Amino acid sequence: MRKILVTGFEPFGRDDENPTELLARDLDGMEFNEYVVVGRVLPVSVNRSGKVLEGLLNELKPAIAIHFGLAPGLSYISVERVAINLLDMRMPDNNGFKTEDYVIEKDAPLAYFSTLPTRKIVERLNQIGIPARLSYSAGTFLCNYILFKSLHHRAKYGYPKVSGFIHVPYLPRQVVKKHGIITRGVPSMCFENIKRAALVALETSVEWLNGGDGAEIDLFDNSKE
Amino acid sequence: MRKILVTGFEPFGRDDENPTELLARDLDGMEFNEYVVVGRVLPVSVNRSGKVLEGLLNELKPAIAIHFGLAPGLSYISVERVAINLLDMRMPDNNGFKTEDYVIEKDAPLAYFSTLPTRKIVERLNQIGIPARLSYSAGTFLCNYILFKSLHHRAKYGYPKVSGFIHVPYLPRQVVKKHGIITRGVPSMCFENIKRAALVALETSVEWLNGGDGAEIDLFDNSKE
Amino acid sequence: MRKILVTGFEPFGRDDENPTELLARDLDGMEFNEYVVVGRVLPVSVNRSGKVLEGLLNELKPAIAIHFGLAPGLSYISVERVAINLLDMRMPDNNGFKTEDYVIEKDAPLAYFSTLPTRKIVERLNQIGIPARLSYSAGTFLCNYILFKSLHHRAKYGYPKVSGFIHVPYLPRQVVKKHGIITRGVPSMCFENIKRAALVALETSVEWLNGGDGAEIDLFDNSKE
Amino acid sequence: MRKILVTGFEPFGRDDENPTELLARDLDGMEFNEYVVVGRVLPVSVNRSGKVLEGLLNELKPAIAIHFGLAPGLSYISVERVAINLLDMRMPDNNGFKTEDYVIEKDAPLAYFSTLPTRKIVERLNQIGIPARLSYSAGTFLCNYILFKSLHHRAKYGYPKVSGFIHVPYLPRQVVKKHGIITRGVPSMCFENIKRAALVALETSVEWLNGGDGAEIDLFDNSKE
Repeated sequence: MRKILVTGFEPFGRDDENPTELLARDLDGMEFNEYVVVGRVLPVSVNRSGKVLEGLLNELKPAIAIHFGLAPGLSYISVERVAINLLDMRMPDNNGFKTEDYVIEKDAPLAYFSTLPTRKIVERLNQIGIPARLSYSAGTFLCNYILFKSLHHRAKYGYPKVSGFIHVPYLPRQVVKKHGIITRGVPSMCFENIKRAALVALETSVEWLNGGDGAEIDLFDNSKE
Repeated sequence: MRKILVTGFEPFGRDDENPTELLARDLDGMEFNEYVVVGRVLPVSVNRSGKVLEGLLNELKPAIAIHFGLAPGLSYISVERVAINLLDMRMPDNNGFKTEDYVIEKDAPLAYFSTLPTRKIVERLNQIGIPARLSYSAGTFLCNYILFKSLHHRAKYGYPKVSGFIHVPYLPRQVVKKHGIITRGVPSMCFENIKRAALVALETSVEWLNGGDGAEIDLFDNSKE
Repeated sequence: MRKILVTGFEPFGRDDENPTELLARDLDGMEFNEYVVVGRVLPVSVNRSGKVLEGLLNELKPAIAIHFGLAPGLSYISVERVAINLLDMRMPDNNGFKTEDYVIEKDAPLAYFSTLPTRKIVERLNQIGIPARLSYSAGTFLCNYILFKSLHHRAKYGYPKVSGFIHVPYLPRQVVKKHGIITRGVPSMCFENIKRAALVALETSVEWLNGGDGAEIDLFDNSKE
Repeated sequence: MRKILVTGFEPFGRDDENPTELLARDLDGMEFNEYVVVGRVLPVSVNRSGKVLEGLLNELKPAIAIHFGLAPGLSYISVERVAINLLDMRMPDNNGFKTEDYVIEKDAPLAYFSTLPTRKIVERLNQIGIPARLSYSAGTFLCNYILFKSLHHRAKYGYPKVSGFIHVPYLPRQVVKKHGIITRGVPSMCFENIKRAALVALETSVEWLNGGDGAEIDLFDNSKE
């Protein structure tokens, strides 16, 4: 069976859980037609996560890779369209590592565009009542790093043909104690909706790979750069 | 059986649904020990909602009344503690009515405090992972109006002994199209959690009425005013 | 000359300044027709601030008292209309004191309404381009406490005839390091506008006391309670 | 004298002013050592703004170009680091034009990085108490479009050597009527601080061009792509 790699992250900093870790474990082994999901959890460490990702891509040669990460404060599913060749960390990762204005790959362009059917995914999520938006920055921390690495691998080796990153909100239970100074509270999304959103992203990607119109990939095919 | 009145509101303005309308319909008929819920939907009209509420209170003589309303932009369950004797509308209600600095009841104090076990409800919700907070203003629109009316009825006639108001967030599907100028999006809460929160509020109120320690009601018993 | 008492607060918690402390010092000695401003800084301590306020009111017998406080996260000038008879602290004050559901004054109503010309002040601020709104909750910490104390003094002794509370945003320099989890940043207001707002509040109050139509005070005159 | 091009935008949509229009007019003619500022206002029209910019760049051959735009809801000065080769409009421009997933320049990379000393500008602003942050997305509307055009011109013709985009908040008077559904209000910044920020950006750019360490330009020099 062809492989879909789904990654989540372990908890970062003072958080004691991460909805994308739950997601990766939950989706592991699930089948979509002739595809099977391999769900894996990445460490929040620049040095280790890149190697783990590289190992997974080389081992699985997945047709599709969808990477998930938590975006604190977000209220909707955010489907990332752009990865930039830059690591710029305001806080150290879980390994205590921190760098500024660091070029991720010397022999790579400044940016890649995701090859997920991003607009279609957002449209379908909105149609079923799950708030979702396109996003043009995945930040300059681990999330952008993993997306850039995944797309750079694709540019060099041709797979994962479809690769992208999706940011999700906190779980409701994670914001119970987060009062902050903005007194209207920190948004969250229940796990049921986060999981439904992930399934829609997977299904839409499979459909698209199996004979969608191809418009999105062709428009910004990074291999042309 | 003793009665619990649960009210929600019909949709306001351009909204085409209201989670509290769904809630009132959903809880209608539910039983908690010797109590049965009567779920009713109030119109978003100052002139009509007051009369409808009055009618329900006189007819049902409920032991407990919990009024629910939607608070756009909220991310958590907001358990109101205060109703003020003031109607001050920035926008007209669904009937086209609008007034400013209007005293709700001439022969009433400036404020009543809710007699729900508000702090206990918030604590229990947080314990089960549902974001909730105490709130000290229910605004000056329909929500505060209904809470004030309900507590004034209690002060005059002795029932509903336990009366309060709970604000809930938008449903996820309601915020899909609400982009607004704050680009992190409009928070929402899935109906499952809104309903769980309502059940906790009802259960906690029943328990409390059936032999809780009574501390909260005694502390701010409005009948002393 | 007749006295106007203007109070600000010292910095709270980890803040190292408070715009309302600057304001109280800045306005001290300023004259408005036959009125002179006495600007004083209150400690962020329940036990001490109440006594300091009491002392100032007894000594000065001010015609007008406007109390200012900082509201973290606010983007506009917030003119408070309601003080409630409740102290409920989520965090300890600068003295390490913390209490819950504490009644401020046993022989007092549940709430007082401010006797400032609140709506007129908001209208004038908006006319000159300063964002301002009416507010119906001053919280349950020091700010509400001081407003309640000031209005209770008025109810007992007849002065300050005009008393109210105004919340102001952070200064721009205070939010430079406040990143928080809501990535659109923490709002602030430059001191020039905070000061202009305070002057408008003072002028409007003096005017109103010297022959305004009196509508606002009469509508909710607490002495009737 | 060498030229610095400063651009602002005319008001967009229902706004009746734009702080960056005021800024461009205000800075026009100002001198920094051997540089003189040419301040110009761009139309909020994809078709017209690109041509106007092209004309200005060809006529002035500026050493430095700093483009300013309004970001509704922002609370701080946002110094953009990335322009992407994509136009994707949720709303039509002032000319009624709207497009989706449109590639700005066919023979250009997916992204350019600003050549402003962006980090230095943010550090200096924070030091003088003006909230400022680096940003990695200028959106996909007119602001990103103009930054991409300016950096593409630089890549082709070698000037403006230093080019970048800075987003600024609303003016306080613009948010007076913007209540929105997030009730903590819409942030703003007083014009004095917006202008101080622009001057710091200009001074820092001039200094840097006249012998700064060059680190930032070399790190991501787009001419290498």
